[in-house]
Amino acid sequence: MSSLHSLLQPASIALVGASPDARKLAGRPLAYLLRYGFQGQVFAVNPKYPDIGGVPCFPSISALPRDIDLALILLPAHQVADALEQCALQGVRCAISIAGGFAEAGSAAEQQRLTDICQTHGIRLIGPNCVGALHPALGMAATFSSELRNRMPRPGRMALFTQSGALGNALLQSFNDLDIGLAYWVSSGNEADVGLMDLVEHSIEDDNINLIALYIEGLKHGERLSELTRKARLKNKAIVVLRAGKSQLGRAAAVSHTGKLAGAWKVWQDVSRQAGIISVETLDELLDVAIVFDRLGFPGGSGTQGLGVLTVSGGMGVLISDAAAEFQLPLPPFSGATQARLRGLLPAQMTVANPVDTALFTDEMGFAACAEAVLEDPGIDVLLVVMTRLAHDYKAMLPWLAKQANTARKIGKCLAISYLSSSDAFEREDRSLLLESGALMLPTPDRVARALGHRHRVAQLPRYTAQPQVDTPQQSQTMQDFLRLAGVPQVPEGLFQDMGAAVKFADTQGYPVVLKVSSPDIAHKTEAGGVALNLKDADSLRASWLQMEQSVATYAPLARIDGYAVQPMVLDGFELIVGCSVDPELGRVLMVGAGGIYAEVFDDVCFLALPTSAPEIRAVLAGLRCAPILAGARGQPALDIEAATQAILRLASQFVADEWVREVDINPLRVRMNGRGAIALDTLVVPDKN
Amino acid sequence: MSSLHSLLQPASIALVGASPDARKLAGRPLAYLLRYGFQGQVFAVNPKYPDIGGVPCFPSISALPRDIDLALILLPAHQVADALEQCALQGVRCAISIAGGFAEAGSAAEQQRLTDICQTHGIRLIGPNCVGALHPALGMAATFSSELRNRMPRPGRMALFTQSGALGNALLQSFNDLDIGLAYWVSSGNEADVGLMDLVEHSIEDDNINLIALYIEGLKHGERLSELTRKARLKNKAIVVLRAGKSQLGRAAAVSHTGKLAGAWKVWQDVSRQAGIISVETLDELLDVAIVFDRLGFPGGSGTQGLGVLTVSGGMGVLISDAAAEFQLPLPPFSGATQARLRGLLPAQMTVANPVDTALFTDEMGFAACAEAVLEDPGIDVLLVVMTRLAHDYKAMLPWLAKQANTARKIGKCLAISYLSSSDAFEREDRSLLLESGALMLPTPDRVARALGHRHRVAQLPRYTAQPQVDTPQQSQTMQDFLRLAGVPQVPEGLFQDMGAAVKFADTQGYPVVLKVSSPDIAHKTEAGGVALNLKDADSLRASWLQMEQSVATYAPLARIDGYAVQPMVLDGFELIVGCSVDPELGRVLMVGAGGIYAEVFDDVCFLALPTSAPEIRAVLAGLRCAPILAGARGQPALDIEAATQAILRLASQFVADEWVREVDINPLRVRMNGRGAIALDTLVVPDKN
Repeated sequence: MSSLHSLLQPASIALVGASPDARKLAGRPLAYLLRYGFQGQVFAVNPKYPDIGGVPCFPSISALPRDIDLALILLPAHQVADALEQCALQGVRCAISIAGGFAEAGSAAEQQRLTDICQTHGIRLIGPNCVGALHPALGMAATFSSELRNRMPRPGRMALFTQSGALGNALLQSFNDLDIGLAYWVSSGNEADVGLMDLVEHSIEDDNINLIALYIEGLKHGERLSELTRKARLKNKAIVVLRAGKSQLGRAAAVSHTGKLAGAWKVWQDVSRQAGIISVETLDELLDVAIVFDRLGFPGGSGTQGLGVLTVSGGMGVLISDAAAEFQLPLPPFSGATQARLRGLLPAQMTVANPVDTALFTDEMGFAACAEAVLEDPGIDVLLVVMTRLAHDYKAMLPWLAKQANTARKIGKCLAISYLSSSDAFEREDRSLLLESGALMLPTPDRVARALGHRHRVAQLPRYTAQPQVDTPQQSQTMQDFLRLAGVPQVPEGLFQDMGAAVKFADTQGYPVVLKVSSPDIAHKTEAGGVALNLKDADSLRASWLQMEQSVATYAPLARIDGYAVQPMVLDGFELIVGCSVDPELGRVLMVGAGGIYAEVFDDVCFLALPTSAPEIRAVLAGLRCAPILAGARGQPALDIEAATQAILRLASQFVADEWVREVDINPLRVRMNGRGAIALDTLVVPDKN
Repeated sequence: MSSLHSLLQPASIALVGASPDARKLAGRPLAYLLRYGFQGQVFAVNPKYPDIGGVPCFPSISALPRDIDLALILLPAHQVADALEQCALQGVRCAISIAGGFAEAGSAAEQQRLTDICQTHGIRLIGPNCVGALHPALGMAATFSSELRNRMPRPGRMALFTQSGALGNALLQSFNDLDIGLAYWVSSGNEADVGLMDLVEHSIEDDNINLIALYIEGLKHGERLSELTRKARLKNKAIVVLRAGKSQLGRAAAVSHTGKLAGAWKVWQDVSRQAGIISVETLDELLDVAIVFDRLGFPGGSGTQGLGVLTVSGGMGVLISDAAAEFQLPLPPFSGATQARLRGLLPAQMTVANPVDTALFTDEMGFAACAEAVLEDPGIDVLLVVMTRLAHDYKAMLPWLAKQANTARKIGKCLAISYLSSSDAFEREDRSLLLESGALMLPTPDRVARALGHRHRVAQLPRYTAQPQVDTPQQSQTMQDFLRLAGVPQVPEGLFQDMGAAVKFADTQGYPVVLKVSSPDIAHKTEAGGVALNLKDADSLRASWLQMEQSVATYAPLARIDGYAVQPMVLDGFELIVGCSVDPELGRVLMVGAGGIYAEVFDDVCFLALPTSAPEIRAVLAGLRCAPILAGARGQPALDIEAATQAILRLASQFVADEWVREVDINPLRVRMNGRGAIALDTLVVPDKN
């Protein structure tokens, strides 16, 4: 059993510092537990009262019964650590601290003390600086959430974990308004102990959950994200994330190209996309996804998720087609039978294609008959009707719409309702009736299309095995060692301090050759004038050597020069850049992309979380813009993608094994014609400074 | 005076086929004109009645007084042409036909008859298949719009022209709900005569207009768009467009690279962006832009358009910062004085930066005091307050918010209001009060940031002179002629049927050389194996010649071969692709981009409407992803951007002059180091088939 079971399904709750005044924050949780009928045991701790509202009240934590599941500590910051420790000594399994005034207010040491207590005693802590936890089906309200003064959200199958209490609370408000079911919510606060990844892991194991919704400001232990998302996918759970702080995530200071290309936001975007996470931009988009999963569940493998549309405006039909195409949502053609039914309902000049535009040729009942025909089409899972008071009598249509929504729900389909103008929605009470009947209601059709598109894409995701196949490589000690163990395929290279020796080497290898400066102080050789390509004979090599000595001296007069490297020049194929680096949130990541100057200029690179696997690397290579070149564009031969994949996988696996390596760059990795392999023309290994 | 003056400010209106029954479409316009107090003369035409509702009714059009400004023809399709002709003979200046059943229903010939009548007699026609025209300030309702049964929109400064009547009507409904002012609306229908471009041209000359809003499904005479948008910009009018049909605009069949890259949607996107058009994706986004212009007007040159934000959620502050960054809207730091005022209002642990998060540390009046401080900051033009019932008593704050909105409006600023949860908006009557006080209200803060961002970008647009400077070039007769007149800088080239002669030429020009097949039947030489680069000596040239003969014969056995071309190989610089083609909507367009294989793979190309000017070409080159390469990336020398600009401009101007040329491709145009010019290495000219 996950240690968070006692948080989310506690048999007993202690409210430490509970107040009898329900208007105070410290009084709300008890009032909520009573009001919403929590069935477990409830205890209060407050020396001032023998009981509060019929709940037994103890003078101290040490007076509580032992082995309580959950303690909600309602005390101010300076009393939290002692209370937490006493809870631990009393056998409490999990605690929540709502108090502000820790790391978020500059008191990192105070917060570290809480972390230490958890690690010493094994008690788990949510918060501090959080709003608490909520499990509607159990009436379990270990929270001071203000929305519970109004209503408890309907039980459902979504787990919600938010790093902002206020936004989580605002979401509850929307759940109540939009009739979205909630399995549980945890406001994770400062995460002194339990973090989002722990909560996600717990909910992945919960069979009742079909959607895990996250609001993230900063990720701790993000290196667990990919493994968790692989598991979630295998267990038919979708993860939707609203990630805040895009504008604050800058590019890290870095030596390698990989590091420089690794804007934290770019890494997050790439990694979360490959993980199959539904990324949303706004709270409303998060809600839209939640509504769709609430109404339709996790997409079945065989479900077509086809949208049928009925409007009174041809223009709106065009806009919906655009939105469906943009969000990759199928608008399937109707069956012959459906077309025939519609043909009988509409005048001859109207087409009977999807979306159907009835214009003003039908009255409400004609519109309803068209809607029934579409909803019964076997290829249609969701019927979207676009309403407008300019053509429809809402009151007259209400009973029919409610009936259709109900019927649709019974046959595993869904009636979606939105409006020609978002100002033209149903009034609140009518809307409530339709929501209760199972209708999916959003103010505009594009939001319906976008949310359904998110769900549809989840059904298309590849399912990688939860544990990627990686050989456990030997650990390396030196850079040469690392390169050897990583099996980086190198071009023969000689390093020379003497020009004559260099020419002799080149004569043996054959021309053309490449000449490059070798210096620990020059990371970007091209900018230093330290690379000369395509030298066709000994004379060109000598001339370039002399010129390079000069330009390097000008560019970096203090640089230590190990010598000048000579390589035969490989002319066929295409250059990739491959790099490994450490993301502050997501840990070790891999980057692959179009190499050379194009990496930076065309930004055609993609990051993967590590460890990874060959299928994932292949998928990323196939998703690059330069993929057609690799596959053999415009009459060119196909390149050795498989050799590149294996070289990249070996490098990445070695990088995972070698913690002392902070960054690796292969730039370029030249992918040659199919069967001729891939070869690293320049490699940079940056050790960790520590 | 524009001929459309009689449409939008008619002194007299005739309603042809008017009905006394206001429930019928044909009865509505008269009822509306009476209800909304139109001050001009109104006449009805209907043989059945001597008068309708006190308005004089004539038995026929020919019985009407002469020289009426506007006739609204309410007759069915088969009677429209005759009625239009009679109107013309009676001196009517402009007519509207609402009847459906023309081109949209397959009756193109019927519609052509209307076009012919307009051209013969000079009468202007709106429609057919439209909803009519509306000018709220005049009570001028030449329309059957159903929303006018409810209310007339408030007069304002926005011109709205829509190709969908139903969506235009739905927008009116939103204008009324959101308190957005409207100058006039025209539903343009099938555009047998007057099209969107005519309406835009008219409204650009109207000093009252500050925003022109368009819903476009298909553009006629789109070649006028760029000239009109240049004019609009010089006259401080913004243009916002919701363009429908993205999913239906495919790539045109084309011979050239330019043609193949010219997806109609890509051309539209590029051209509209350069024209400074605000592109929106949804009706709600169009409304958001309309609200912002309604409240704040066209952005003044000196206005900072800075947004100040006040929330009770740090998380929402982060989300708003993200949105502001994404939509390029400044969130300026507060002045020292403002910071000091906030410092006095907030507890020590809260920061006083923009956005301000008051958390739960202030009551409503404290929140109000913070808001006043921000609104008085000289760098802030718009204060956004994010409300939530979870922290605020809306009723208690209402009077203060209304007062602040009013005060802000008086000093040229604006109070924007949105919500932590979009489900938590003010009730309708309270919202109305705030709207009337001048508040800018949108359900979510990201919509506020996006709409203000659109307006802010309009203020940053470069203002090109309305008439681009183009020499009027001589017209060409042949391809050679075209290339000579266009001054395309060519590399010396010899065309040979004989290998020996080719080698002699190469010996003279110097190696390396390039060998290319020359055939009217082979557009893509690389794919045919018809290009050999970097031939270093006579032997390589001979070998490539023999190989090329073979591969070309295999690829295209029936192709006519003019011979094989030899050129010295230009190795320095960077390759652009430059092309000209004819877009079905926007007419002659120019494309520039990164050349060679990268044009297609990295899609780094951009289209401009023609005619264009050097500053516009420079701006497009600077906006390409490959711009850093042109400017001299990573230690490479800067390239001759000016020479490229002039070569592109001359080519484009010649293309505008020569209607017989349908497509031109220069691929590549090699831009050499600064001072060494730009040179076309391969050029394709495709004549028009007609």
